Amino acid sequence: MSEGRIYIVGLGPGDSGYLTQDALAALKEAEDLIGYAPYVARAPERAGQIRVASDNRVELDRAREALARAAAGRVVAVVSGGDPGVFAMAAAVFEAVDEGDPSWRELDIRVLPGISAMQAVAARLGAPLGHDFCAISLSDNLKPWEKVAQRLEHAARGDFVMALYNPASRARPTQIADAFSLLRSLLPPQTPVIFARAVGREDEEILLTNLEQADVSLVDMATLVVIGASGTRIVPRGNARPWVYTSRRAP
Amino acid sequence: MSEGRIYIVGLGPGDSGYLTQDALAALKEAEDLIGYAPYVARAPERAGQIRVASDNRVELDRAREALARAAAGRVVAVVSGGDPGVFAMAAAVFEAVDEGDPSWRELDIRVLPGISAMQAVAARLGAPLGHDFCAISLSDNLKPWEKVAQRLEHAARGDFVMALYNPASRARPTQIADAFSLLRSLLPPQTPVIFARAVGREDEEILLTNLEQADVSLVDMATLVVIGASGTRIVPRGNARPWVYTSRRAP
Repeated sequence: MSEGRIYIVGLGPGDSGYLTQDALAALKEAEDLIGYAPYVARAPERAGQIRVASDNRVELDRAREALARAAAGRVVAVVSGGDPGVFAMAAAVFEAVDEGDPSWRELDIRVLPGISAMQAVAARLGAPLGHDFCAISLSDNLKPWEKVAQRLEHAARGDFVMALYNPASRARPTQIADAFSLLRSLLPPQTPVIFARAVGREDEEILLTNLEQADVSLVDMATLVVIGASGTRIVPRGNARPWVYTSRRAP
Repeated sequence: MSEGRIYIVGLGPGDSGYLTQDALAALKEAEDLIGYAPYVARAPERAGQIRVASDNRVELDRAREALARAAAGRVVAVVSGGDPGVFAMAAAVFEAVDEGDPSWRELDIRVLPGISAMQAVAARLGAPLGHDFCAISLSDNLKPWEKVAQRLEHAARGDFVMALYNPASRARPTQIADAFSLLRSLLPPQTPVIFARAVGREDEEILLTNLEQADVSLVDMATLVVIGASGTRIVPRGNARPWVYTSRRAP
């Protein structure tokens, strides 16, 4: 039985202030760090640690590399932005276990959750996720657009606050426009909309607008989009950005 | 202008390993700690810090107490289990700002997100929240049951993974049974179901079952319930608890 281990570590969305105690300890203990290059670069330096940085679009390869190293007895940290369990590396690792060498099922794998982008964005604005909400990836890389559209429609009809991940990319620039066309046909024009870019980083930008006025050309790969529900309230406050929260009471 | 400040701090779901760097710093800086007694008890001791512990059902009173103290120049930490922005104290604080003294809108309020129960539960099992999901509070304290049922139905028809918070209480023991009746009429009997109690605490208990076999009498106030979607997979592994993950691919 191998002594190897895999930590799947969430770094949070940018600033090291989001790191948990468990994540810090795992980054210190790991012999090998594996992940998308900008995430690997965010882990504190440790002498002797091997760093395997890769491109963002090879999640399954990266997962298999981590599993093979752990099977060979290494202590590996797979580093992920945000929470690895939310549209990030954890599902890829377990998919690789599911489809890979049966001995990988015996490996010691520990997921260390992190602050996901929607949580950091919500915290900046107040509490827009303060009541029932959903998280939807707009990427149609691995599922057909019809499936995305169906989820958006149920989220709107169910009066959920929505956090939309992966809203746009160079390869697929039109999802966010298609999503807004659909949502505009289902929700009131004054529905609050948040575009948050690079939250927790120095170049963070947050825009509070509404469904009618939102300019989707501002949305890029690094943007998280939040759509309010009927219970979402705006609290104006002079020159500062208004607070946004979703009431726990039904409207 | 007051020098007071409010940190709304997420402690995560139990173990101090979930604490973020920012949360630790705020708990250290705060002059006054306010919160539900068991959460206040989890903050590290600091000499001279005033601790105001209260019952769980007085969220708005607690929020107003924090705002009044900050308005008087105190540095206050409102402590919350999990993530304060997810079914916790942040929405109550902004609701109190919205409805309270207009000067409260000028206060320096900073929400520090934490690991919510669904994230810690998901990490224990693998990656059940690895694709589109929603979070629904089953409490009908502040909204009618019809609204809860409507959201459950849209979540099921939209093929979302669901994290169900506040599934039962002494005052309202039947929501979870009603919710399962509804979900059983909409989803396949083999749909994976997770009951997770006291996650991150010493008495943690996790049960993996399915919609047909789930015994809702096991669910209490401290339980988080996760319902899988069509893409949720089980990976058996000998005597150990199977891994559960939700595939990023459409089924």
